[in-house]
Amino acid sequence: MGFVLRTEPFADADLSVDEFLGGRVRLLQPLSGYRAGVDPVLLAATIPAKAGNRVLELGCGAAPGLCCLGSRVPGLELHGLEVQAGYADLAVRNLVENGMQHRVWQSDLRKIPQELRQISFDHVFANPPYFQAEMRKAAQDGGREVALAGETSLSDWVALAARRSKPGGSVTFIQRAERLPELLAAFQDGLGSIELWPLVPRQGRAPRLVLLRGRKGGKTPFRFHPSQVLHAGARHEQDAENYVALIRSVLRDGAALPFPD
Amino acid sequence: MGFVLRTEPFADADLSVDEFLGGRVRLLQPLSGYRAGVDPVLLAATIPAKAGNRVLELGCGAAPGLCCLGSRVPGLELHGLEVQAGYADLAVRNLVENGMQHRVWQSDLRKIPQELRQISFDHVFANPPYFQAEMRKAAQDGGREVALAGETSLSDWVALAARRSKPGGSVTFIQRAERLPELLAAFQDGLGSIELWPLVPRQGRAPRLVLLRGRKGGKTPFRFHPSQVLHAGARHEQDAENYVALIRSVLRDGAALPFPD
Repeated sequence: MGFVLRTEPFADADLSVDEFLGGRVRLLQPLSGYRAGVDPVLLAATIPAKAGNRVLELGCGAAPGLCCLGSRVPGLELHGLEVQAGYADLAVRNLVENGMQHRVWQSDLRKIPQELRQISFDHVFANPPYFQAEMRKAAQDGGREVALAGETSLSDWVALAARRSKPGGSVTFIQRAERLPELLAAFQDGLGSIELWPLVPRQGRAPRLVLLRGRKGGKTPFRFHPSQVLHAGARHEQDAENYVALIRSVLRDGAALPFPD
Repeated sequence: MGFVLRTEPFADADLSVDEFLGGRVRLLQPLSGYRAGVDPVLLAATIPAKAGNRVLELGCGAAPGLCCLGSRVPGLELHGLEVQAGYADLAVRNLVENGMQHRVWQSDLRKIPQELRQISFDHVFANPPYFQAEMRKAAQDGGREVALAGETSLSDWVALAARRSKPGGSVTFIQRAERLPELLAAFQDGLGSIELWPLVPRQGRAPRLVLLRGRKGGKTPFRFHPSQVLHAGARHEQDAENYVALIRSVLRDGAALPFPD
């Protein structure tokens, strides 16, 4: 199957303005297409960036992760790579609107511009498509499909992240738990000091998502952190998100979500 | 560094008789050297064997795992592979004493006997050395060193397990959580339907051990199960093991510890 890339800019009538981090970030997002959930927000909250750092998000979409990170840590140089021109255009608009120093590269991650090849980053992160293309039926909307089920393998994502990272720099991915073996294998190829942090919807449940971090040139043995619980209570209560206090403070107050010591 | 294999049989004066599974299994073990803890007992409790099955443990030592499995599931054909002749000899004595149908192969797992190459198994399991040889100082006792820090890579262990498994057969390993990346990569090479089951000492702690299972020819996506808690309470109480009820029933009553559905 093939993909239809979203190459045209979105018309304003096709966009909504959505608030993140309790209104600290406002984002234009397509009404139909890929719309950010909590995952890129949680990912951005884990990035151990400090003022003056240069960071890169691969597959940044409309830049919810970059905008959330830039809101929490002022003084960053934020770079985003996005293959779909329609989303790259939104990313620029959102980064400008939120007052962030930024650079958006519209490019396939398998053939990035020569200029970007010269730049290395303190932190690289990504929330790659959660499903492998061949496992899904084509979605109605080509843009949403590329965001959810890209054609590019996880190993290409991780390899680029490792190449663009400074020595000692961090690479952090969020991904469905089901793809941990593939992701971990890719991390082992180019990164060290790997840390796995599973996210479980509720206490005692299986992880649905994993956060994986590595360091370029890192030599520390692999660490398997205790799972982070997202929701309080034993079951889903209708119309109540019911996040545990830490996660609520990340999503509503823009707090950090540092990896465990 | 080199290893001193334990090639001589142990003298009776150098052995103790120890009870497992509440006295259902009695094992001769060397007073100094490798002595089984709870890990091989937990591993054996997870093996989904049924009467009539043929099973193989790689690196069986004095056969605590095989004896516990044979006690829980009567009617198995139990095979053990052990490189150290002193331990292989103990394994035979223990399997005989516990009345188990058995065959012990004294061999390096990188060059197994031609006869064993002809046999395939319903279930293969292993509790390989927990430390890589180059990371440890030589221990006083050569036999203990080989049991704790073998020279053979995890990928050799997993590759042999996969080769000796029937199509659809299970391969189950227990290992320190720190070596999950290496173990998972090895499983991905020869097995499918991989399942990860972390064991945490207490609720909310980082996993210390992982159980990993694969199926030869399996096609089910990777599964990441909720962690199994071993001990109740928030901290270690002196002189009290304080296992959670399920684990206590495994260790004291010989109950099964099936992987989650």
